[in-house]
Amino acid sequence: MLQGVSRYDAYIFDVQGTLMDFYTPVTRAVAHALGPDADPATVGDLVRAWRSDYYERILRLDQSVEKWYRVQDSYVDGLGDVCEQFGIDLPKDVRVETARAWQRLEAWPDVRPGLNELRSQAVVATLSNTDMATMIALFRDQQLEADAILTAELFGAFKPERFLYERTCRYLGVDPFRAAMVASHPYDLRAAREVGLNTVFVYRPLENGRVEDSVDDTEGEFDHRIEDLRDIP
Amino acid sequence: MLQGVSRYDAYIFDVQGTLMDFYTPVTRAVAHALGPDADPATVGDLVRAWRSDYYERILRLDQSVEKWYRVQDSYVDGLGDVCEQFGIDLPKDVRVETARAWQRLEAWPDVRPGLNELRSQAVVATLSNTDMATMIALFRDQQLEADAILTAELFGAFKPERFLYERTCRYLGVDPFRAAMVASHPYDLRAAREVGLNTVFVYRPLENGRVEDSVDDTEGEFDHRIEDLRDIP
Repeated sequence: MLQGVSRYDAYIFDVQGTLMDFYTPVTRAVAHALGPDADPATVGDLVRAWRSDYYERILRLDQSVEKWYRVQDSYVDGLGDVCEQFGIDLPKDVRVETARAWQRLEAWPDVRPGLNELRSQAVVATLSNTDMATMIALFRDQQLEADAILTAELFGAFKPERFLYERTCRYLGVDPFRAAMVASHPYDLRAAREVGLNTVFVYRPLENGRVEDSVDDTEGEFDHRIEDLRDIP
Repeated sequence: MLQGVSRYDAYIFDVQGTLMDFYTPVTRAVAHALGPDADPATVGDLVRAWRSDYYERILRLDQSVEKWYRVQDSYVDGLGDVCEQFGIDLPKDVRVETARAWQRLEAWPDVRPGLNELRSQAVVATLSNTDMATMIALFRDQQLEADAILTAELFGAFKPERFLYERTCRYLGVDPFRAAMVASHPYDLRAAREVGLNTVFVYRPLENGRVEDSVDDTEGEFDHRIEDLRDIP
């Protein structure tokens, strides 16, 4: 949809799910940990439960800029709890190794060309709920480029806290109404909208591995809905 | 000097002076403001005085992450004081316009190829004493790429405060002894060394417009001394 002039001066991207597929690499790691006899349906359910546990878990963490509990470590903790729910026993070292899969996310195919085209016209930044080092490594690994990598660790707090969106705009030197938050998760876009940002919903049907577990914006809650980053307004 | 494997895992760069020439664009702007009758020697002296004033000034600022007084605004304040010292009267709007030159720095010729080569082997980040928006715009304007743009604004404090160097290493996911601070200013490298970082001194003979005003590491105080980023160890 871009035709030489972008609609907004800056685009702020959620990463996990929106720019990158976590389900494929994490499912692969869980299947490997559980061994060849594991039921694929159970593996998928465990990955989805692990993802939910992560989100609930980080909202309970008492974080600050000075003292940061690494989000990647909370995946290890979470896998322990989820395995217990599923009646599965995995040794600690296997859980640690399996949790590393959350640092090996894979960019959806539209992301690299989409970001590159967008970046020739506007400021492109991340705003992710993870650790800085993880995000820097992921962007290097997936050969993605941004003007600024911002993550929760810099703020000592997680989305959807409002001040993260406000301060991201300050850091980028852009008024919220001249910028857009881009995400596949409604909670993220709703919070961004409250500080005046425009909203771009990205439909990722396989984010959770099954179309029936996907989230869509069928009612047109947000300013724009896209299925491919190359269609970004 | 790079031969396929970099010596360190991450390189942290000072920007103003080290990666970019401020003297040329700022001198041009000051000469323009003072008009065709201005003595070039006076213009040069004023630029050097302005630069010194900036450094003294930011160290006195009471900054925080929440409330940030834009460094770029302190250039406007500083120009007022420096003009007074020089017995020069410039209207406020001319001072504001002239101070914008500090947002139009020019990368030294070795910087773009040097950073690109380095970045194929190691993490490359900035740690600059300026505002985030200025640095993001400068990197875009000069077509430079980094894995992370970090500036004083994110920390609410300026170099050479030690915690900036420590936390930069945390953000990059690297132990200080596996990383290097790269700068043309001894005060910056000395502080970095105190937290365990390796030090790369970059000799920039024309940083202040005249070789006699340059700073060198003739006594070998730092781990490495280079004159071209392509020679980075």
